[in-house]
Amino acid sequence: MFFEGAEKKLEILVKNKDLLRNLNGSSFWEELVNKCDAEILSKVSNDKLTAFLLSESSLFVWEDKILMLTCGQTKLINSAHFFINKIGVENIEGLFFQRKNEIRSHLQPTDFIKDAETLNDLITGEAIRLGKMHSHHTQIFYSTTPYATKEGDFTSELLMYDMDSEVIKFLTDENLKKEQIRKFFRINLLFKDYEIDDFVFNPYGYSLNGIKEDKYFTIHVTPQETSPYISFETNIKNIEGVLNQLTEICRPFSFDILTFSTEDAIKSEFNFGQNYMKAIHMKDRLNTGHNVQFFYYNRKMEVPEKAFRFQKFI
Amino acid sequence: MFFEGAEKKLEILVKNKDLLRNLNGSSFWEELVNKCDAEILSKVSNDKLTAFLLSESSLFVWEDKILMLTCGQTKLINSAHFFINKIGVENIEGLFFQRKNEIRSHLQPTDFIKDAETLNDLITGEAIRLGKMHSHHTQIFYSTTPYATKEGDFTSELLMYDMDSEVIKFLTDENLKKEQIRKFFRINLLFKDYEIDDFVFNPYGYSLNGIKEDKYFTIHVTPQETSPYISFETNIKNIEGVLNQLTEICRPFSFDILTFSTEDAIKSEFNFGQNYMKAIHMKDRLNTGHNVQFFYYNRKMEVPEKAFRFQKFI
Repeated sequence: MFFEGAEKKLEILVKNKDLLRNLNGSSFWEELVNKCDAEILSKVSNDKLTAFLLSESSLFVWEDKILMLTCGQTKLINSAHFFINKIGVENIEGLFFQRKNEIRSHLQPTDFIKDAETLNDLITGEAIRLGKMHSHHTQIFYSTTPYATKEGDFTSELLMYDMDSEVIKFLTDENLKKEQIRKFFRINLLFKDYEIDDFVFNPYGYSLNGIKEDKYFTIHVTPQETSPYISFETNIKNIEGVLNQLTEICRPFSFDILTFSTEDAIKSEFNFGQNYMKAIHMKDRLNTGHNVQFFYYNRKMEVPEKAFRFQKFI
Repeated sequence: MFFEGAEKKLEILVKNKDLLRNLNGSSFWEELVNKCDAEILSKVSNDKLTAFLLSESSLFVWEDKILMLTCGQTKLINSAHFFINKIGVENIEGLFFQRKNEIRSHLQPTDFIKDAETLNDLITGEAIRLGKMHSHHTQIFYSTTPYATKEGDFTSELLMYDMDSEVIKFLTDENLKKEQIRKFFRINLLFKDYEIDDFVFNPYGYSLNGIKEDKYFTIHVTPQETSPYISFETNIKNIEGVLNQLTEICRPFSFDILTFSTEDAIKSEFNFGQNYMKAIHMKDRLNTGHNVQFFYYNRKMEVPEKAFRFQKFI
């Protein structure tokens, strides 16, 4: 029953808008997704953005950018190479490839360093780690060739781990319906007027894409008791209140927040009340002009907990 | 330059003291160590205890017990099966097999669950996890058949991660001598009258065994900048002061403490001053009659740090 929830993430900007436009309606997006051993389940679309829900996470396509998140044992690096070959390396404006620390990395076909090496053979870049090696961290390879970053370019990720047992119990109910999960996450309240595309996996697990104009948010739930994990990502700005509510809803033992922004306007601190303490905070500026911040919060544990007992060997 | 410092640990108690006594002088210990792809480098011995320094960590042999610690990509599970087959499962009084969360588990030949399953086929036991799946943790398979635990049976482990850059710089100096490292760890001050056996690895890395009567302590240093790690383990009692001093010497970003004891006399709290905060505390009682505690401390980070930049792809 183990499933590696930790996402790999690929973001590629292209120089010429026609390149991606011309691919619409072709089998390209299906091929791109298949290259990493995932499948397209469904899609929603508007003038600015197409969002594909995948068997392992999500793909978003703007007129000049793609964003692909995949989890499990997917080989996202293969999709990256497929895309670069198809578009031509000379048409790539910028690239980010990100992997967070995985729980069972021995089940992964490659590791971050190997992936970064194969990208660096094509595109000059740098590899960094945010967080600590022996704690929560994420590793990023990114292209260092300068380009004009868009004003207002903003991304934030909220990665929640080891949720409260009641939350896990609810999310592992095999009869859960979409509507119940949307209500649980207060989707209609927190994300008004977004077009929603979501899927409940068998026996459990949940993925959601929401889009409105060029804005997206996505939620992926891996509730398995052995490694419970929920991720949220968005390019909506002023998101602190939503992040706060999501941590209240999900009650994780620990969570990470990762933000990328071309502006200096990101709050350097979040306020998660008296329940959590900030264990790690890293802040840096990339050669692309992005400010990046990484936070790791841990619930305060006033009373010692009992050991986790494996019910069977899984 | 990556080296997996995280130890695997095997402790086996036998019913009949002659069983281990009769093996002294034979090639058995060498074979046992070779089974997990390690080698014996040297040994020290007294009436009660023999300590072998290994190419990957340590083996301790008492008249009725063995304790084996190995790191890197060693297959300690193979040594466990070799020992059980040689001694006979009917002569095993108790068994503990422990693996902590590894940094690059994809480089490991097996994982904890697989190892525990193969042991459970021979010996009735239980598997537990101390710590959180998505944070520092250690997993233990132990035999649940009751036996008379010895009074005063006490073990403590201190596992230190991501040491201060000055400490790493010192420990990765390729010209370091044993004497300098002993002085750095204040061995003579903290462990009076212990017989010491230590080894400096090439280009760096350090292992030490110390014994006095039936007491041991052992230190293993993996200073590689990509995953710096220092472990300390001992059966010396009233060890809080020593643990405190070791954290002051090594200045880790985070550390775990794990204690096993048949008594209730272990302090439930350590005092690590104002520099660290307690992130996890777990406490339980095993069927063997041992109390077990797990603590995870994290340095307070007042000012955000910069990202870690990979100098080259390793």
